[in-house]
Amino acid sequence: MVCAIKIHEKPKLNNPVLIEGLPGIGFVANIAALHLIRELKADFFAEIRSSSFQDLAVTTETGGTRSPINQLYYTKNRDGGRDLIIWHGNTQALTTFGQYELCGRVLDIAEELGCHFIITLGGFKQEEITKTPQIYCAASDPETLKKALDLGAKVMVGQIFGIAGLSIGLGRLRGFKGFSLLVETLGTHPDVNAARQALSAANKFLNLKVDLSGLDAAAEKTRKTLESFGIIRRGTKEKKKEESQLRWFI
Amino acid sequence: MVCAIKIHEKPKLNNPVLIEGLPGIGFVANIAALHLIRELKADFFAEIRSSSFQDLAVTTETGGTRSPINQLYYTKNRDGGRDLIIWHGNTQALTTFGQYELCGRVLDIAEELGCHFIITLGGFKQEEITKTPQIYCAASDPETLKKALDLGAKVMVGQIFGIAGLSIGLGRLRGFKGFSLLVETLGTHPDVNAARQALSAANKFLNLKVDLSGLDAAAEKTRKTLESFGIIRRGTKEKKKEESQLRWFI
Amino acid sequence: MVCAIKIHEKPKLNNPVLIEGLPGIGFVANIAALHLIRELKADFFAEIRSSSFQDLAVTTETGGTRSPINQLYYTKNRDGGRDLIIWHGNTQALTTFGQYELCGRVLDIAEELGCHFIITLGGFKQEEITKTPQIYCAASDPETLKKALDLGAKVMVGQIFGIAGLSIGLGRLRGFKGFSLLVETLGTHPDVNAARQALSAANKFLNLKVDLSGLDAAAEKTRKTLESFGIIRRGTKEKKKEESQLRWFI
Amino acid sequence: MVCAIKIHEKPKLNNPVLIEGLPGIGFVANIAALHLIRELKADFFAEIRSSSFQDLAVTTETGGTRSPINQLYYTKNRDGGRDLIIWHGNTQALTTFGQYELCGRVLDIAEELGCHFIITLGGFKQEEITKTPQIYCAASDPETLKKALDLGAKVMVGQIFGIAGLSIGLGRLRGFKGFSLLVETLGTHPDVNAARQALSAANKFLNLKVDLSGLDAAAEKTRKTLESFGIIRRGTKEKKKEESQLRWFI
Repeated sequence: MVCAIKIHEKPKLNNPVLIEGLPGIGFVANIAALHLIRELKADFFAEIRSSSFQDLAVTTETGGTRSPINQLYYTKNRDGGRDLIIWHGNTQALTTFGQYELCGRVLDIAEELGCHFIITLGGFKQEEITKTPQIYCAASDPETLKKALDLGAKVMVGQIFGIAGLSIGLGRLRGFKGFSLLVETLGTHPDVNAARQALSAANKFLNLKVDLSGLDAAAEKTRKTLESFGIIRRGTKEKKKEESQLRWFI
Repeated sequence: MVCAIKIHEKPKLNNPVLIEGLPGIGFVANIAALHLIRELKADFFAEIRSSSFQDLAVTTETGGTRSPINQLYYTKNRDGGRDLIIWHGNTQALTTFGQYELCGRVLDIAEELGCHFIITLGGFKQEEITKTPQIYCAASDPETLKKALDLGAKVMVGQIFGIAGLSIGLGRLRGFKGFSLLVETLGTHPDVNAARQALSAANKFLNLKVDLSGLDAAAEKTRKTLESFGIIRRGTKEKKKEESQLRWFI
Repeated sequence: MVCAIKIHEKPKLNNPVLIEGLPGIGFVANIAALHLIRELKADFFAEIRSSSFQDLAVTTETGGTRSPINQLYYTKNRDGGRDLIIWHGNTQALTTFGQYELCGRVLDIAEELGCHFIITLGGFKQEEITKTPQIYCAASDPETLKKALDLGAKVMVGQIFGIAGLSIGLGRLRGFKGFSLLVETLGTHPDVNAARQALSAANKFLNLKVDLSGLDAAAEKTRKTLESFGIIRRGTKEKKKEESQLRWFI
Repeated sequence: MVCAIKIHEKPKLNNPVLIEGLPGIGFVANIAALHLIRELKADFFAEIRSSSFQDLAVTTETGGTRSPINQLYYTKNRDGGRDLIIWHGNTQALTTFGQYELCGRVLDIAEELGCHFIITLGGFKQEEITKTPQIYCAASDPETLKKALDLGAKVMVGQIFGIAGLSIGLGRLRGFKGFSLLVETLGTHPDVNAARQALSAANKFLNLKVDLSGLDAAAEKTRKTLESFGIIRRGTKEKKKEESQLRWFI
């Protein structure tokens, strides 16, 4: 299967912007995307499972189950703003192969909906951060870069790991333009301050007028979800150890 | 190939329940499924091999060979009970990719036979266990959860690894309902007490009337089979070490 | 690609026996197969490359190159004996997935040529061996087992790793009968004595009348080939360490 | 996807030679290919991305992004020389499977353009090197080997890792002829001296008349590119450590 996609609705969108918000460094994008979905009352329209996700289910507090999944939401006809596709999820793929496949499939869907612009959010890991963490950026082309710089971002120097970097690169191959906004973070916990910076910039660029006062709730929800999947350890900064191949056996 | 499936018979079943019983924590499901197959005289109808199983054969005591395999059995027209599909095997897949593929293929077959309900059994690893180990549960939806709670299970909090968790999640994507019954176990040996608890609950839910007095024999058979594949070490609690890539060479 | 197959000739064979002779424990099968090919003047008819082989070429003494490869040979109309397909090569696949794929493709070819019987040779690793190493066997079915036991083999108890075990198992799924002959070996070097035992038994079973006096030459050729691929280290018993993912880089 | 190929132009070439120049030992081929592209003003015509490349983007000094990629260039109607296809890139694939796939796809393209000859360049790692490093060679066949020996190369004894070896082997399966030129190098840094030797030989064989005075610039550009991808560590000889599976998470 690699990716199993279920599309619940094919929205008609007008030149939408794709915002990537999967878990990554400092969980900046993941918090920001969740907050956007809530504040903009975005509509859920597609879900993606990949055989490169973890092979498990986690339980909810009420005895339900939750699986590793990526989900797409949209907003349209926003007052004064562009239509949006928001890419949220509780995991990225575990293998390079899975990452390319996942990214390719989401870009397929976005392209089909008329999307040619992508914004990826993320953390830029630092040993120390200032109170107002700096935003860095990189873009598909000089013209788009200028737009990111105009938001107060500085030019990023380094590597953009995972889907945040991959989707800019694979997008460009299809003629997408786009930029990454990467906010300074210690990267060791869901970083609500960094997410606020990222959202402020996105707010400005997309004319979103999203209220950021409830951002702590999105960070807390993100923390709980990722803890349940073992991606964040409860109360520690410890990295998840690579699972044994025969993990299901004892 | 990924999965090679050989279907020996296509049974006509009436709204059957799929019971997953592969080796996992404490081998609870594996013992229980074997016992069900024996006691219900279930009919073997399909076998599945995956390129994500181990690449070896093991010998039987009498010079025969046994391969890593999953098998499907059915029972129908049981006096007072629903038709069943029992998913048994001597291994799960070694990779995440293989797990998703295996699970998807078995759900394909089950769906084709009219199945929309899955029960997965398993162990819930604990440092200590009481004499009558507690059953925990998680379900695809609140209504189904209630059925599991009615069997005396408590709400599970944690991760359900491997096929037991995956099949609930992938099933839900296809409209399957279902629950996991996870019994407390040390997880270090084939746990006949935990399997007895799981079977008692399944007995009650499915109106099975299966005699549990011969369960030790199923546990002993399970232990021997898994030892022959090196999944359980003879007389130890040691985990199987990851095989070298060139294992076939010396 | 996984497997790229080039068939140079489609021989018409009469109910042939497939003899597997890839590198494995003690290189027993590899030496035996090479000797058979030479002594029977078997005809080369197919070659298989797999993306699960090593990604390299090795040089010959004369500046040529050799690649990881599997090759099929045949003999037909032998005086008093059955037609043969001999499966030789300088490697098995590096991954479980690759092993299943490779094995499946060779069985495809064999089946198409009318083959329904497979003999796999191999080493059975022991800490100590006697001067005349014992042969052990396992078979697809009791009738075939009896044929192997009649050759002086004892019933094998244990695991048959790699293609030697896999091809018996995957073959049975297609209706192949067959047995494995596994000879005691220290497993640390190309073991000419073990290969001699294996060939003696094969000679007897297949009515081959192959002269074994030149077996040392086949062992030496096998050692040189496998050394050039780094599968045997020059002058040591050391196992090959897993290659770094970025091995091509420094 | 495995490989995503974008062909921008299908040049009409006359019996072209494919020159492989990916990063490898001492980065000999990578420097040499870049220099050829610049000096011959070769035309870019195809790009290849693979899901076996790293899943990241790196930033350029000016805020742009660069992705792991392979690119094909051509030159035609050169005064007195054969048409060329130059295979350049900032990475090889991370897995054996990916290497075979990548190599197969490039050979597909080359074959379609009428190419039947391949030259692979590379480093031959030594503990010490002389001032004028020796060139070693291996070839698809004796006739082609003679051509390489005539360039002053000695017969290579050893393994040719990665695409440099693989493409000779996979090429031969399709009827390509070709040779590898491997220059002695410490292998720990982009080795401009070794690249000069390789290019001198290629110059001679292909009647290229390429000026080698600007080779330092190509080496410096290669070093910077590979540093940005983390393939060369800034100022050290350290190998890149295998990335954690969940690298994107902290």
